[in-house]
Amino acid sequence: MTAGPGAGPGVGAGSGAGAGTGPGRVEARLAELGLQLPVVAAPVAAYVPAVLEGDRVWTSGQLPFVDGTLSVTGKVGEGPGLVPPADAAQLARVCALNAIAAVRSVIGDLDRIVRIVKVVGFVASDPTFTGQPGVVNGASLLLGEVFGDAGVHARSAVGVAVLPLDSPVELELVAAVR
Amino acid sequence: MTAGPGAGPGVGAGSGAGAGTGPGRVEARLAELGLQLPVVAAPVAAYVPAVLEGDRVWTSGQLPFVDGTLSVTGKVGEGPGLVPPADAAQLARVCALNAIAAVRSVIGDLDRIVRIVKVVGFVASDPTFTGQPGVVNGASLLLGEVFGDAGVHARSAVGVAVLPLDSPVELELVAAVR
Amino acid sequence: MTAGPGAGPGVGAGSGAGAGTGPGRVEARLAELGLQLPVVAAPVAAYVPAVLEGDRVWTSGQLPFVDGTLSVTGKVGEGPGLVPPADAAQLARVCALNAIAAVRSVIGDLDRIVRIVKVVGFVASDPTFTGQPGVVNGASLLLGEVFGDAGVHARSAVGVAVLPLDSPVELELVAAVR
Repeated sequence: MTAGPGAGPGVGAGSGAGAGTGPGRVEARLAELGLQLPVVAAPVAAYVPAVLEGDRVWTSGQLPFVDGTLSVTGKVGEGPGLVPPADAAQLARVCALNAIAAVRSVIGDLDRIVRIVKVVGFVASDPTFTGQPGVVNGASLLLGEVFGDAGVHARSAVGVAVLPLDSPVELELVAAVR
Repeated sequence: MTAGPGAGPGVGAGSGAGAGTGPGRVEARLAELGLQLPVVAAPVAAYVPAVLEGDRVWTSGQLPFVDGTLSVTGKVGEGPGLVPPADAAQLARVCALNAIAAVRSVIGDLDRIVRIVKVVGFVASDPTFTGQPGVVNGASLLLGEVFGDAGVHARSAVGVAVLPLDSPVELELVAAVR
Repeated sequence: MTAGPGAGPGVGAGSGAGAGTGPGRVEARLAELGLQLPVVAAPVAAYVPAVLEGDRVWTSGQLPFVDGTLSVTGKVGEGPGLVPPADAAQLARVCALNAIAAVRSVIGDLDRIVRIVKVVGFVASDPTFTGQPGVVNGASLLLGEVFGDAGVHARSAVGVAVLPLDSPVELELVAAVR
C-alpha cells in the first residue's frame, strides 16, 4: 500500500481499521481489496491531475496507466484487431484507481470524500461497438467496492473516435469532499 | 401526468396552478405542454440516474428511451441509412424529458430547480454530419418551454463515433436547486 | 482591447496596472499579451455562452471563431487533407480566448476569477491521430499565461468523430469566481 500523505511514520501497510492515527478507512479498504494507488506523477504541464475548489474535486481525464505505461492500446469492439470489451472494463477499473489517486493528491486523506458525484467514461470505440456501459462498469464497480454508498454516482458512457496515446478508455470524475 | 413524489393524494392530473398543495408550478407546466415524465427505472447498477450533492443535481447520460425502448438507433446525418437530423432533435427532446425525470427522482419537487446550469449533448454522428447544434436544440428548446428563464443553460454539442445501444443521442445536465 | 463591462468611460486600451478604476489585473495582462477578447454574440438560441450560478461559471462549448468565422475546418491528424496538430493547438488557444470572453459576459470583471477549475477539450480527430493532449495544450498554455497559478486546471482531452460546423476543436470550461 502506498502510504497516504496523512499517514504518520511507522504505520504499517494493511494495519487496519482506520483509527485516528491509522491509515484511514478508505486506505484500509483499498488494502483489503489488494489495491495499490499509483504515485501521481508530478505535474509537467499547464494542467494538473486534479483541482480542489470549494468542496469539490475535479479530476483530469485519467488513462489506464500502470507504472507509466499503457498495457493495451486501440479501439474497443468485437472482432480481430479490437480490444475486447472485458479487457476494456479492466482498463476502466485502472482509470478509476488512477482517478482516486489524483483526488488523493489534492485532499490527502481519502476519508474526506463524501460522495463520488459524477463519472464520465470515454471509450475509444469501433463504430459498430455499442457496449460502452459495460466497459465503464469496470470503473463504477471499483468505486462502489472502495467507497460503498458514497461511491454510487451519476455517470455518462460515451463512444469516441480515438483517445490520447490510442488509449481504449479515459475517465474523469467529480467528487464531493469535506 | 405522473404525480410527483410531493403531490398529495387526490390531486387530479392537470389540476393546475401550483398552489401549495397542488402539483407544483413545473409539473403544471409539463401537463400544459402535454408532456409526461417517465418513471425512472430503479437503479440496477453501480450508478444512479442522478445525484444530489449540495445544491447541484448531476444526471447520468440520458438516452431517448420511451417505455424502456429506443425507437430509433444509428448514426445521425444526411443520406441513406442515417437518422435524419430532425428526427434526432426529437430524440434529444426525449432525452431532456428523461433528464428532468432523473432530477425529479432525487429532489421530488421540480419547483426546487432554480437553474438548468449546463447541458452536454452527444450526437452519434456520421463523420460528414456537422449539424450537432440543431440536434441538441431539441433538448434546449424543451428545457426553455418547461422552465422558462430558469431553463436557459450553457451547452456543449459534440459529435461522437457511437453511443450506448447505438442510440443516436445522449444528454447529461447539471441543475442548481434550492 | 475590448473594454470590459466594468471599465469606466475614457479608460484607454493598455492603460495598465489594474488600480481600482483601471481595466483590472487580468484585462491588463491580456493587453500585455497582445490578446483581444472577442465580443460575445448576443444569445440567439435556447442557450447562452455561459451561466453563473453560485460561485461557478460554466461555459458553453466554444468553437475557434474569429470575427464570427472558422478559419479552418476538418479533422485533425497527420497527412493530406487533415488539420496539422500545431494548427489545431492554435485553434484551441482561440477557443480558450473565446471561453474567457464568455465568462466575462456573465461576471463583468475577470479579476473575480479565482480558479479555472476544469477544461474539456474535444478534438475532431482522424482515427489514427492520438495527440489530443498536444492540441488542447494550446488552450491550457493560454490560460496559464493569462491567469497564472489561477489558470492551472484539471483537464480532459478527447478525440471525437466530428464537431459542429466541422470545427477541428471545441472547448468548455468551469471557473470558480468570487
